[in-house]
Amino acid sequence: MTHIELFGFAAAILTSLSFFPQALLILRTGETAGISLVMYSMLTTGKVCWLTYGLLVTSWPLICANVVTLSLASLILTMTARGRLSKRSQTHPATA
Amino acid sequence: MTHIELFGFAAAILTSLSFFPQALLILRTGETAGISLVMYSMLTTGKVCWLTYGLLVTSWPLICANVVTLSLASLILTMTARGRLSKRSQTHPATA
Repeated sequence: MTHIELFGFAAAILTSLSFFPQALLILRTGETAGISLVMYSMLTTGKVCWLTYGLLVTSWPLICANVVTLSLASLILTMTARGRLSKRSQTHPATA
Repeated sequence: MTHIELFGFAAAILTSLSFFPQALLILRTGETAGISLVMYSMLTTGKVCWLTYGLLVTSWPLICANVVTLSLASLILTMTARGRLSKRSQTHPATA
């Protein structure tokens, strides 16, 4: 492996797995106050596009990397959206 | 432009710009409680590697996309680290 490829692999591994500690932090603490729903909506949609592109050009590195990040990004998106909804229902409870 | 390239461009634009609303949210509210410092440390290091890789293989799309994301990711990292430090100094004030 050349030093150029080494930078590429390190980059792919670090950026793909970076969402793992964020997902873990939310699962552990339930804290989603500072997280942007717009960011994770754009990121999840972007990852769906990358995955589609990877499938269309049959690029296994693109497919594998984006399956991992898409799973983590959509998990963070779901938990953040759930956090916002539960906060909203506490602020404006249904008056039956 | 083919429909395959369209997916690639949409993916690159969405994922690169997705960090913009997160940086804006922190600048507007100062809220960083739910944000993972480990995520943004890994992401910033990964983006430095992508940028180095882009420069080594002289890929302008890689260079441009990663200059944008690296700037946004390092801004979020700095603001989150500052938020943690200020919270820590409030919890354990210097007794000088």
